[in-house]
Amino acid sequence: MTQVPPQKIYNTVITNSMVATERLEIFMPEKKKLALIIHSGTIDKLLCAFTLGSTAAAMDMEVHLYFTFWGLNMLKKGAMEKAGLPATYRQHEEMLKTKLKEMNYPTPYEMLKRMKASGNVKIYACSPTMEMFGVTRETLIPEVDQIAGAAAFLDIAADADITLLI
Amino acid sequence: MTQVPPQKIYNTVITNSMVATERLEIFMPEKKKLALIIHSGTIDKLLCAFTLGSTAAAMDMEVHLYFTFWGLNMLKKGAMEKAGLPATYRQHEEMLKTKLKEMNYPTPYEMLKRMKASGNVKIYACSPTMEMFGVTRETLIPEVDQIAGAAAFLDIAADADITLLI
Amino acid sequence: MTQVPPQKIYNTVITNSMVATERLEIFMPEKKKLALIIHSGTIDKLLCAFTLGSTAAAMDMEVHLYFTFWGLNMLKKGAMEKAGLPATYRQHEEMLKTKLKEMNYPTPYEMLKRMKASGNVKIYACSPTMEMFGVTRETLIPEVDQIAGAAAFLDIAADADITLLI
Repeated sequence: MTQVPPQKIYNTVITNSMVATERLEIFMPEKKKLALIIHSGTIDKLLCAFTLGSTAAAMDMEVHLYFTFWGLNMLKKGAMEKAGLPATYRQHEEMLKTKLKEMNYPTPYEMLKRMKASGNVKIYACSPTMEMFGVTRETLIPEVDQIAGAAAFLDIAADADITLLI
Repeated sequence: MTQVPPQKIYNTVITNSMVATERLEIFMPEKKKLALIIHSGTIDKLLCAFTLGSTAAAMDMEVHLYFTFWGLNMLKKGAMEKAGLPATYRQHEEMLKTKLKEMNYPTPYEMLKRMKASGNVKIYACSPTMEMFGVTRETLIPEVDQIAGAAAFLDIAADADITLLI
Repeated sequence: MTQVPPQKIYNTVITNSMVATERLEIFMPEKKKLALIIHSGTIDKLLCAFTLGSTAAAMDMEVHLYFTFWGLNMLKKGAMEKAGLPATYRQHEEMLKTKLKEMNYPTPYEMLKRMKASGNVKIYACSPTMEMFGVTRETLIPEVDQIAGAAAFLDIAADADITLLI
C-alpha cells in the first residue's frame, strides 16, 4: 500500500468537515511514537531497551524513555558502566562483556548518548523513585530531560504506537 | 489543538455517512484504557504496577489488572504483605522497606484497595495459574473481580490505549 | 454496537475521497495483531508468553513473537526442554514441573509447535543476539520464520493492537 503524506489527507478531508480534520491529526501523527518504561537495571535489559530506542530513533520515530526503580538508579553518573547481569545469569557476565567488546558493541551509555543526538529521544527520571533511593538531580547524567511522575508517562503512552515495560 | 467533545464529531460526520459514525465511536472512547499483566510477585514490580494503576485511575482512565503466575500468588490473602525483592537485589530489601515506611508510602495492598475505591479498576485472577498452584477462590483477597483466562485479557487489551506486562 | 464489515466502510468513504480510503485500511485491519518481545528464557515467562500467543492465535489474531537475548537462546534445538525458573524462585522448580505434568499442561515447545500449526503465528530470531552468543541458523529449531533486527519488530509492533515485552 502506498504511504500517503499526512498533509494530503488533511486537505482532502477538510473539504468535508473541519471538525473531523482536527481529530484526524490524532490518528495520523507525522511520527510513530515508542514509549518505554525501563524498570530494570541489568545490562541484558538495558541493551534490549537501548537497541529498541536507538533503532526507533534511527527510523525517525519519537522515543520516550521513562526510567523507574532499578532503571532510575542506572541514570546516576557512572552507574551504567557498572551494570551487570541478574542473579539467574550471573555466571555468564564475564563472557558476555568480553564478547560485547570483541564485537565493538557500544556500551549502554554510548547508546544512550548517540540516541539523544538524533533529536528524537526524551529521557525521564521517575520522581517517586528518586525520593525512595535518595537520588538528587545533580547526581544524574546530563542527558535526563525531565524529572516526572507516572502521570506524565501515562499521558505520553496513551498516544504512543508502541508501549513496553522492561 | 482543541479537544472536541466526541458527540459533536459524531453529529458532523453523520451528515456524511452513518456507517462511518458507528466506527468512529471505537476510535474515540470516552475513557482511555490501561491493561496491565502482572506476572511478577516482588515488591519492586508491584509498587511499579500499582503506582501506574493508581495514577491512571486518578486520571479517570479505565484500569484492568490481570494477575498471573507469581503475580497471581500475590492475590492470596496475606501474601502481598510478605512480598520481597528478587534475588538480584535481595541485599537492599531491608533498606527499601525502612525507607518506604519513613516516606509513609502506602503498602501494595493499601494501594490496591484505594485504586479499587475509585471505581475505575478491575482485578482479574488467571485461572490456569490457579490450577497450577492449587489456589482456590476462597483464599484470594475480596478485591478480585473475576477469575479469567488469557482470552478475556486479550479481548480487553486489544482495545486498550496502553498495554504493559510486568 | 454493530460490527460493520470493513469493505462496506471503504465503499462509503470512497465516494468522498480515495485517499482517505487508503488510510482507513490501516485502522481497520481484518485481524487484530499481537506483537510480543520474548527477552526471558525461564519457564515461568515462556509459559506466559506462549499461553498468550496460543490463545491469540486461537482467537484468530495475527501473532508475532520476536525472541531476543535469553529468549533467543531458547530457540536453540533442545533448549526449551531444559528451561528452569529464575534464581528468585528456583526452590519451586521441581514442584512446578511435577504439577505441570500432572495437569498434562503442554511443554513450551509443544505449545510453540501447536501455535505455528494455526497459521497465525510468526517466529523471529534477533540477529544481534545471535552474533552476541555465537548462535547460527542451523542450531535453531525449524519453526523460526525469520532472522531479523529490531527495525523489523518495530515496524510490526507499530501497527499491532497489543505490544508486550516479557
